[in-house]
Parts: sequence; C-alpha cells; structure tokens
Amino acid sequence: MSASDAQYGKFVEFGADRPLVTDGGGCVAPLTIGFQTYGELNAARSNAILLCHALTGDQHAANLHPLTGKPGWWDVMVGPGKPFDTERFFVISSNVVGGCLGTTGPASTNPATGRPYGLDFPVVTIRDMVRAQAMLIDHLGIETLFCVAGGSMGGMQVLQWAASYPERVFSAMPIATAPKHSSQNIAFHEVGRQAVMADPDWRGGRYLEQGVRPEKGLAVARMAAHITYLSEPALQRKFGRNLQDRAAPTFSFDADFQIENYLRYQGMAFVDRFDANSYLYVTRACDYFDLAADYGGALAQAFQGTRTRFCVVSFNSDWLYPTSASRAIVHALNAGGASVSFVEIDSDKGHDAFLVHEPEFIATTRGFLESAAAARGLPPRAGETRA
Amino acid sequence: MSASDAQYGKFVEFGADRPLVTDGGGCVAPLTIGFQTYGELNAARSNAILLCHALTGDQHAANLHPLTGKPGWWDVMVGPGKPFDTERFFVISSNVVGGCLGTTGPASTNPATGRPYGLDFPVVTIRDMVRAQAMLIDHLGIETLFCVAGGSMGGMQVLQWAASYPERVFSAMPIATAPKHSSQNIAFHEVGRQAVMADPDWRGGRYLEQGVRPEKGLAVARMAAHITYLSEPALQRKFGRNLQDRAAPTFSFDADFQIENYLRYQGMAFVDRFDANSYLYVTRACDYFDLAADYGGALAQAFQGTRTRFCVVSFNSDWLYPTSASRAIVHALNAGGASVSFVEIDSDKGHDAFLVHEPEFIATTRGFLESAAAARGLPPRAGETRA
Repeated sequence: MSASDAQYGKFVEFGADRPLVTDGGGCVAPLTIGFQTYGELNAARSNAILLCHALTGDQHAANLHPLTGKPGWWDVMVGPGKPFDTERFFVISSNVVGGCLGTTGPASTNPATGRPYGLDFPVVTIRDMVRAQAMLIDHLGIETLFCVAGGSMGGMQVLQWAASYPERVFSAMPIATAPKHSSQNIAFHEVGRQAVMADPDWRGGRYLEQGVRPEKGLAVARMAAHITYLSEPALQRKFGRNLQDRAAPTFSFDADFQIENYLRYQGMAFVDRFDANSYLYVTRACDYFDLAADYGGALAQAFQGTRTRFCVVSFNSDWLYPTSASRAIVHALNAGGASVSFVEIDSDKGHDAFLVHEPEFIATTRGFLESAAAARGLPPRAGETRA
Repeated sequence: MSASDAQYGKFVEFGADRPLVTDGGGCVAPLTIGFQTYGELNAARSNAILLCHALTGDQHAANLHPLTGKPGWWDVMVGPGKPFDTERFFVISSNVVGGCLGTTGPASTNPATGRPYGLDFPVVTIRDMVRAQAMLIDHLGIETLFCVAGGSMGGMQVLQWAASYPERVFSAMPIATAPKHSSQNIAFHEVGRQAVMADPDWRGGRYLEQGVRPEKGLAVARMAAHITYLSEPALQRKFGRNLQDRAAPTFSFDADFQIENYLRYQGMAFVDRFDANSYLYVTRACDYFDLAADYGGALAQAFQGTRTRFCVVSFNSDWLYPTSASRAIVHALNAGGASVSFVEIDSDKGHDAFLVHEPEFIATTRGFLESAAAARGLPPRAGETRA
C-alpha cells in the first residue's frame, strides 16, 4: 500500500492483497481511498474524529474544493475554534467507496478490463463504505475514534460504525438521518436513477469510454433531489412566486420564476462536479440501508451494551429524514442501554440545515464534544479550565 | 359551430369567428372542446354540475376511458345514487384547453401551418381553461351552474369560475387545492418539464411530425410527480421496504423494491395516455395560478359580495396542496362575506385522496349538494322527502 498527495488531496491505496469484499459478494481491489485531515493527532492517538459525508459530498469538508473552488461542505463546523476544533482534534474526512473524488468507484479503472468499471463496479452498501473507512483508520494507526459524526447518508455511516465497531467509537453524532431508508426515500432516489438512465448519453453506464456524459439526466436527478433537501416554508421565504429579472410572466417555458432558475442552476453546477454512475451507486447504498434488518429486525440489538456516547440531532423542518426517524434511533439506543442525548433543532431550512450556519446546532455539537472530551480525558480548550 | 360524437366522446367546435383569446395574448381558433355529459338537464336548466379535472385528467369522469379501458377518474363520485347523482343532476365534464383528449392543445393542428402546434400553441392559464368551459356551458344553453366542483388543478378552476362568473355559479366545491401555486409546487413542475425537454426525442416540441415521442422523459416526469400525490405514511403502509418478487436484494439497479416497480409502472402507463407537450402546458397553467394577483393581491377581493355557496375540502395528509392552502381560501371567502363550509378530512392517502373511496369525503359532498339543492329548489332525491 502507498500514500501520497494527489490532485484531490491525500490518498492511500490498498493492493490486491487487501480486497474490500462487499455485502453483495463483490470485490474491490485495488482500493484507493481519497481523504483529508485537519489538525494533529495527539501522542495518545485519542483525539481523532471521523467525519462522514452525505450523498454527494466528499472528503473536502474544510478546505477549498479542488473542482468548484468553494469552501468545504462543513466549513462552518470544522476549523480552529469551530465545533470540530482543529486545534484540539485530528479531523479525518474520506470519500466513500463508490464515490468519484479520489476513492475507487464506477469511474475508476477496472483492473480486469483496463476500462472504467461502469456498472461492473459492485453495488456497495453503507456497511461497505464503513468497512473501507475502517481500513483507512487502521492505516492511520488509530485504534479508537474519539468521535464519528455526519449528517444524512453520513449519519447512516455513523450508525453503522457504532453498530459494527462499538469498541472503536467513543462518541457518535448521527445527524438528520434515519435507521433505514423509507419507501418515499427510495422513491425519490429511483426517480433520480431513472432520469440518469433515461439519458441516451448514459450508454448503459459506458459513457466515459465513449466520450460523452449524461449531463441532462443527471441535472434532472439533482433538481428533483434538491427540492427534498429544502423545506416548503424556506422555499416560500427565499423564492416565493418571485419572477426572475422581469416584471411580468412571459407566458412561455423560460425560467420565469426564481425557483426555476435556482433549480436549473443547481442541476447544471452538479454535473460539473459529480459522476453520473457514482450517483447511481451512492443512492443505491442509501436505499439498501436498514440497520435493524442485520439484527433480526430489532434496531436496539444493533446497539446492545454499547459504551459509545451518542448525540442524535434532527431538524424540525426536515421532511426527508424527519424527527420521527431520529426518535426511532433514540428509542433503540435507550432500549440498548446506551448513553444518548437527543436534540430536535428548530429551523426552517429543511434537511440541508445541518450544512448551514445554525447557531443551536453549533452550540449542541460544541457542548456534546466538550462533555465527551472531558470523559475521554482530553485536555480542555486552550485558555479554558474545567469546572 | 358543430357538435357530434367522436372517438373520445362528445365535442363542440368553435370556429374562427369565436376565438379564445388567452391571458398571454395568444389566440386559439378553431377551438374544439371534448366533453362528456351524464344524466339529464331539467326543464328549468337548473340542475347542471360542471366537474373540472385535475392535471392529467380528462372529460371521462364516469365512463370507461377510451384509451385505458379503466373506469373514469371520478367513477366513485359520479353516477346513479352517488354524490354527483346522475338521476338528479346533469353532470358535465370537459377536457381543458391545452389538453390532449379531444380539446384543442399543442398536439392539435395549427391552422396557420397545417402541422401540430407544438410550442407554437399559446401558453394557457387556469382562467383560459375556465373561459373555454364557459363557451361550452353557453353552447349547452345553461345560464347558471348548480355546482362547479373539482380537485387539485380542478379546484383552481372552481375558484376561477367563482371569481370570474359569480352569478353563474350557485355552489362551488374547491377540493384539495390552493389559491396559488407555491414555490415548491412550481419546483416539482419544473423538474417534470425539464425531464421532458431533456429527452432528445422531444425535438424542441416537434416530435409528433418526426414520428417519435419523448417517452422516457415523460415517464420520469410522471414518476417524480406521482410521489407528490401520495403521503409518506401511505407509501410506507402500501410498499414499505418490501422487495419485489424476491427474498433478498439483488445488489443491482433492477427494481428490487416494490415501490420502484410501482413507480416504473406508473411512468410507463402514463406515456400511453398523455401527450408530452400537453404535460408542459397544464403544469405551466398551474404555476401561473395566483388568483389574488388578479385582485390587487387581496384574495378576498376575488369573492367580494359573492352569493355562491362554497364547500372547501382538504385532506390532512395532502402535502402537495396542504390544509393551510385551503384555510387561506376559507379566510378569503369569510372576508368576502361568502357562505362557506370547510372540512378537513382525516385520511392517510395524501393528495390523491379525493380520487379514491373516502367515506367522509363522500358523505361531505352528499350533504353539501343536498343542502344546496334544497336552497336551489331542486326536488329531493327519489323516495325521500325533506323535513
């Protein structure tokens, strides 16, 4: 195995001797994992935090994105003095397996053919993503993570980490997530996949070697998904029925309304940074997520006897992964005897609230990590003393 | 003008001397209106009910559909002894302008070119749809409608009828609808339109004359829309995470889950009965609907002094046109001094609840019409006497 800095950040490569065997019986080898780290690992190796990204996120949580030039997706949460304080913690963020920003996925070269995998890449699960992350954490020489945190699909990974490797997770923050994908969640993902596959430039998944890309289909998929990330009140507040740069409607199919213009922009911007086949794979991984199913249908069994400290967070305007889903997690944790705190945060920003500046969420995260750090025996923040 | 029975039912044609001038400044001439009637008009011409169909509905409310062979969309509500009792009332149902089942729309021949209109068909509004219906009602020799009723986009037409022609509407039932399209409503419609237009077989709207049809794009549009017609709890109850004809997931992109299979079927069935350009037009008409905007922004002004009797109905699991939107209608009607009753019906069936057998909705409709019939001086139902 080798590790170095590449175009998209750090990466580590596991050779054919370290295959990732997937839940579906597939095998990914070699496996490259693209990742980023922020801050320094302490001598006791006890201050490492793993951040798990959401569906179309990546390892660039807190640095300028190499493709878009924009701040990282959790720039508001990660950095010196921020809740995931890089002056105290060693923060790790890696691209999921099946992704398209440095970790092996369907756009990578299939060693068996020398061509891009396309749909020959094995379908992966949330557990496969976590297995790959565990290989990275092993590689970094970390036995126990101080915290695993993430929202949405990232939150599913947090739950899977806590279930698969309880002794390696000191504390866990599953945010705006669910213990399984609902019928409606699957339905929206299926619409997105069908939009991609309906694009003739998808070419049965072989578009890369044919020099085309299913941009229109992927943009439609993103537009549909994007609506589910925002609350109806937030859309009404932000866009309402406002017209775009005009005083009267054009009575045409132009983007008359600001919301139309905004969605079209979201669709177009997305295709510049994301691979269409990866979109199929990450949505499919979510659909297959049903943590209880691996434990005889009893979610509490996934956490039985755990010593991990949990902080479960939901947002009251999130209709994609509503508070009821977080409550199901909390009930299971309680039944499993876990230490758990639960916060439903009042915000009108919908599912994406965890990605934006929400003071109550920031305070919650800060407080939970502070308490966990004390329990872990980590020194207090510089200039502060503990009561 | 002429009227006769055709493949799709009755129709009436208005010639170049009776153009429909649209809100957008366009002109539809000739204008054919496809319609159906059920029951008999009484001698006083006082028992006519106009039913207004929803987005992709048509005039076939209570007869076998000529394309699908299935019962009409309101078969549960219209017929002998049913709430819209065809033994008492003369029930009229017409296809909207811009539609594709007998009324002039983008698939009709443009007299200026001899080719299908395509996008040269003028963008129409809900008010244009109602103007066309008024021409039909004139043609049928009916001065005042006993009732105008409809759900969803049909409910918007009901509101527009009551605002535009208050003296011609004795009673009105706007069901599962809204006084304006919200930002989220517009967003979902825009996704559908982009899905259609992204299909290379759409050909800029000229697909008919080129012998192709944007079936994949239209199917994706329908799939996305269909999710919004159902509630999350109903999806969970009906499909949950059940697998389709298999015991274990295939770890593929096949329709593993029943909900995927169901959505794919909905998409495919839709393209067999609906024209893609018509879909663009009817969604656009909804997006432009904002009744208050025509009355200085004050919805109550639309109904000022009205003598129409209203029954507003919403369903508590409808998240597309939620109860809050119906409440806004009720508040405006109250402010306008109207006679109004409001019923929020408990159902988990979401927006589509108005199309299925909901006993409380049936009882509500029956009661409202009975009371209105008494006020109108219509005879009681056969075998019944009034207290």
